[in-house]
Amino acid sequence: MGKASAASPRRHPPAAGRTPRSPVPPTRPDITGQTALYGVLGDPVSHSLSPVFWNAGFRALGLDAVYVPFHVPAGRLAEALAGLGALGVRGVNVTLPHKEAAARLCTTLEPPADDLQAVNTIRLGPDGALHGANTDGPAMYRLLTSLWHPVGKGAPLPLAERGYRAALRGGEGGTLPTSSRSVGKGIPAVPPGPVLLLGAGGAARAVLWSLFQAGATVIYWANRTAHRLVCPWSAERTQVRPVPWESQALNEVMVESTLIINATSLGWRAEDRLPVLTAAPGPGQTWLDLVYHPASPLQQAARAAGARVIDGLDLLLGQGAAAFTLLTGHPAPLAAMRRALRRHLAGRSRA
Amino acid sequence: MGKASAASPRRHPPAAGRTPRSPVPPTRPDITGQTALYGVLGDPVSHSLSPVFWNAGFRALGLDAVYVPFHVPAGRLAEALAGLGALGVRGVNVTLPHKEAAARLCTTLEPPADDLQAVNTIRLGPDGALHGANTDGPAMYRLLTSLWHPVGKGAPLPLAERGYRAALRGGEGGTLPTSSRSVGKGIPAVPPGPVLLLGAGGAARAVLWSLFQAGATVIYWANRTAHRLVCPWSAERTQVRPVPWESQALNEVMVESTLIINATSLGWRAEDRLPVLTAAPGPGQTWLDLVYHPASPLQQAARAAGARVIDGLDLLLGQGAAAFTLLTGHPAPLAAMRRALRRHLAGRSRA
Repeated sequence: MGKASAASPRRHPPAAGRTPRSPVPPTRPDITGQTALYGVLGDPVSHSLSPVFWNAGFRALGLDAVYVPFHVPAGRLAEALAGLGALGVRGVNVTLPHKEAAARLCTTLEPPADDLQAVNTIRLGPDGALHGANTDGPAMYRLLTSLWHPVGKGAPLPLAERGYRAALRGGEGGTLPTSSRSVGKGIPAVPPGPVLLLGAGGAARAVLWSLFQAGATVIYWANRTAHRLVCPWSAERTQVRPVPWESQALNEVMVESTLIINATSLGWRAEDRLPVLTAAPGPGQTWLDLVYHPASPLQQAARAAGARVIDGLDLLLGQGAAAFTLLTGHPAPLAAMRRALRRHLAGRSRA
Repeated sequence: MGKASAASPRRHPPAAGRTPRSPVPPTRPDITGQTALYGVLGDPVSHSLSPVFWNAGFRALGLDAVYVPFHVPAGRLAEALAGLGALGVRGVNVTLPHKEAAARLCTTLEPPADDLQAVNTIRLGPDGALHGANTDGPAMYRLLTSLWHPVGKGAPLPLAERGYRAALRGGEGGTLPTSSRSVGKGIPAVPPGPVLLLGAGGAARAVLWSLFQAGATVIYWANRTAHRLVCPWSAERTQVRPVPWESQALNEVMVESTLIINATSLGWRAEDRLPVLTAAPGPGQTWLDLVYHPASPLQQAARAAGARVIDGLDLLLGQGAAAFTLLTGHPAPLAAMRRALRRHLAGRSRA
């Protein structure tokens, strides 16, 4: 403890631009009166993994900062956001069910939060201003382009270059984690064929936006309640085709799709099934799942049938890394953050 | 990390009544989405030592909780307090300059916060109610009675027994730290002679209240600005005698007093002097100082002249231990908290 103090952990704000890795070893400095404060707002928030990998990031960089969970009931978001500024909190992430309401309460919205009308990151200005951003969309966009374009070839930007690109420089070396892991050596890039998107909630909306950004050609879109299938975006090269939530229609488009994206919450529980899909995707197809529960029965079925499965862990890290950079000004130490996350999940499944 | 999760740190709220010491070793469990949140509100808050010994207390008990600093500007206290409830914070301490304003904003005031019209501890109700308490007064009261009455003899309560006594059961074994350390074997109790109190701010007010509670007979009271010497309490056996802030008068009452209490902020800086006091207290006298800077020139002068010196560290721990119990329901692990504090201060003075 005395040692940590004597080692003088870095203070915020950091110097402008890229900062070299700290020589401070990854110890856990004490929280003192000077420790900078970050957190995540949600209801529930108890399931959030963000505190685990954010604090691992602070430790790896030797930053004198801490990231805590704020349990905010739906009706009290405005009070909570006003309180954050008064309490000296530097910045927060926002998770369910607050992402859309937070976008309405922010002072400014940085692209693509305006396009998405959803915010997962808020930077508190010294004047109490709330600067909203969205790193969910860019993280998904990055994952999609890494699937569709081999590493190093570069991905064309089908829509106008936007400010959110800054948020993409979240990771070490300027890349998000998905590019290196999802398209490794010997793994072919997924051809940009038809995509089947399941779900129409806030997460599915960010996926849909990313599919437009990444230049998808055909998007089949299905949801249990069909009236939610309203797409606010349009582009010449991209067709969105609503699909009824019934067995024959869904199975037909599933077989045709090279990429199936599960943006529903199905898969968190061992008993979760998708009875409308009678077959699982097979070889040559990719099952991209926003759920990161390793025992998801949907992911297990896809894997067993020979499909490539990508779970939500890299997306979680991707949005987190971009938010880390946005709020702290430091490149996110991704390796340390991923390590902490995997260790935590392994410990939890043992418990 | 995985280990900490697997070890299942205790969750709040604790079982009713005294809880046995946890068998969990004093590791630092990860902050997760389930970690309970506490903190301290102040401006400045960077000097606060509360995060250091509160978090040491959580670790010693294996509680899944964290205590963070909230920097709250004077004009934004109401927003900050409203935000705390909305953000799911369980409870906070309040420090300068907010103690009096917080008392006005609380939903309920537990004695003696009502008497003192100052709050240093707020428990957040599930309904967002703010329950204000004051553990500064009781901690000082406890210290005074430990000085005036040998351990084990018990101290008579000159005023009606009050609810604040519950807060006094903050320490291990039901006692605050001051009783064991300040009146050790072979150290005679201070006879309840005249007391000289220096200062008239919020801290001095809590001291004055405690002197009434502990049955002081004569209180000499001096402050640089005399118009602040207004005492809201009265008791038959206690006389408060204002003393002019000038050399002859102050030196006369100082010589006569068995206990001199410095409740000014003098002593924090190496150049701090009290030129109106030409002599230091000597043998048979006690210099009780709310400052806990080990290099305070006032304390050094008193020590050199042969007086017994008690610094503010035990008071800091005493109010903290009582608040810890009030907010968490657990007896405060004082030894671990004091150890962390001393180690931190030693590290800071080396840095």
